[in-house]
Amino acid sequence: MSNTPAIILVDPQMGENIGASARAMLNFGLTDLRIVNPRDGWPNQAAIDMSAGALDKIEAKVFPTLVEAVKDMHFLFATTARPRGMEKPVFNPAEAIEKMGADFSNDMKTGFVFGPERAGLNNNDVALCHAILTIPVNPDFSSINLASSVLLVAYEWLTKNPTPSSRGELEGGGTLTPPAPHEKLDELLIRLETELQESGFFRSPDQKPTMLRNIRAMFMRGGLTEQEVRTFHGMLTALNNKK
Amino acid sequence: MSNTPAIILVDPQMGENIGASARAMLNFGLTDLRIVNPRDGWPNQAAIDMSAGALDKIEAKVFPTLVEAVKDMHFLFATTARPRGMEKPVFNPAEAIEKMGADFSNDMKTGFVFGPERAGLNNNDVALCHAILTIPVNPDFSSINLASSVLLVAYEWLTKNPTPSSRGELEGGGTLTPPAPHEKLDELLIRLETELQESGFFRSPDQKPTMLRNIRAMFMRGGLTEQEVRTFHGMLTALNNKK
Repeated sequence: MSNTPAIILVDPQMGENIGASARAMLNFGLTDLRIVNPRDGWPNQAAIDMSAGALDKIEAKVFPTLVEAVKDMHFLFATTARPRGMEKPVFNPAEAIEKMGADFSNDMKTGFVFGPERAGLNNNDVALCHAILTIPVNPDFSSINLASSVLLVAYEWLTKNPTPSSRGELEGGGTLTPPAPHEKLDELLIRLETELQESGFFRSPDQKPTMLRNIRAMFMRGGLTEQEVRTFHGMLTALNNKK
Repeated sequence: MSNTPAIILVDPQMGENIGASARAMLNFGLTDLRIVNPRDGWPNQAAIDMSAGALDKIEAKVFPTLVEAVKDMHFLFATTARPRGMEKPVFNPAEAIEKMGADFSNDMKTGFVFGPERAGLNNNDVALCHAILTIPVNPDFSSINLASSVLLVAYEWLTKNPTPSSRGELEGGGTLTPPAPHEKLDELLIRLETELQESGFFRSPDQKPTMLRNIRAMFMRGGLTEQEVRTFHGMLTALNNKK
């Protein structure tokens, strides 16, 4: 079974939550766990104890940054309570898993990104993602445990993908050209940033991070294909050579 | 809202699991927690700590036996992995909550009964219930945490009984700032075409219509807002002025 989503934990603090996340993943058939900059290092005995054996069966990979962790990813959901004014589509867990089944072919990698326990994902991390995952909760008691959020994604995934054969049937319909892998888009955005910097586009250094985030969000939302990324490079080259 | 289900924990062992169950319940709007014969007595500091404040808001009631705990109940689901040959209907969490909405009036009390961590419910306890709740899991790693089982019931309940404030998020699949009016996008595309034409981007006149169509498709798919259209104009101006 391919197109099984990855779970990416950014800056997780408590080993217990990493272990409980791994257990929840494997309970519902997910095995691609990526850990970015865990506070207490890795491996972590509290995580192993809490995983009830899941971390013996799942190979967790550790990365220094989110950018490193998602190089092979085609589509990322940022799990966050509030979209904070970013222009990204918002999905609940069931809708997100439905979107995966409807829009993405089996050779596309999808990831669900979760922030640290207290603070959640920061704006830069959210900007790296294509869409927002929001879990509908009681507004008067909305602080949900990290592993519980992971559990709900995994549960919805298994619910909608009960067997490999049911997945095959889903693909019959019109499939879209897949978005470019994350690193191709990243190269384009880095180039664009450099050229805009040289051209004086960023009037004040204060504004630059926000403007870059908005530009990134715009490009992510389009879900550019590899061909389209090449077209953009071509446009930039042409505009540069113009005089 | 009435007919909100009760969660009944039979012989729970770890206070941590009771606390995590209470937190999961309140996250999704459930408040009727009943505890039968907790191993470590009640109140339990580990439970309070793990509940992240939920046990201050939920009044947990303690009973000596399951029979005492369910006196006011009209319908009970026994949560168990295997029906063990009992002649009872079997539901998954989504189906159980659907059945509640479809079959039970608001003045009927429904309960979900969960057994102790290791052993699960014994046959006598299952026999007291009207139906079986089974959570679909990975058959190779099926041991699910007690609080996780509670969480899934509560999650399905809120999903199917959204409060006014959770409803917005539930139905929010794709709520966005509206895209720019078509003419704004058109102006941008016409400007881009002109500049690309002047820069020699379109190598052959034959290709030009196709390339323009692809560029247009790329921009349309992003669903650019008016602010983003202005940002694009700004980028073009900056790139033009560079050198």
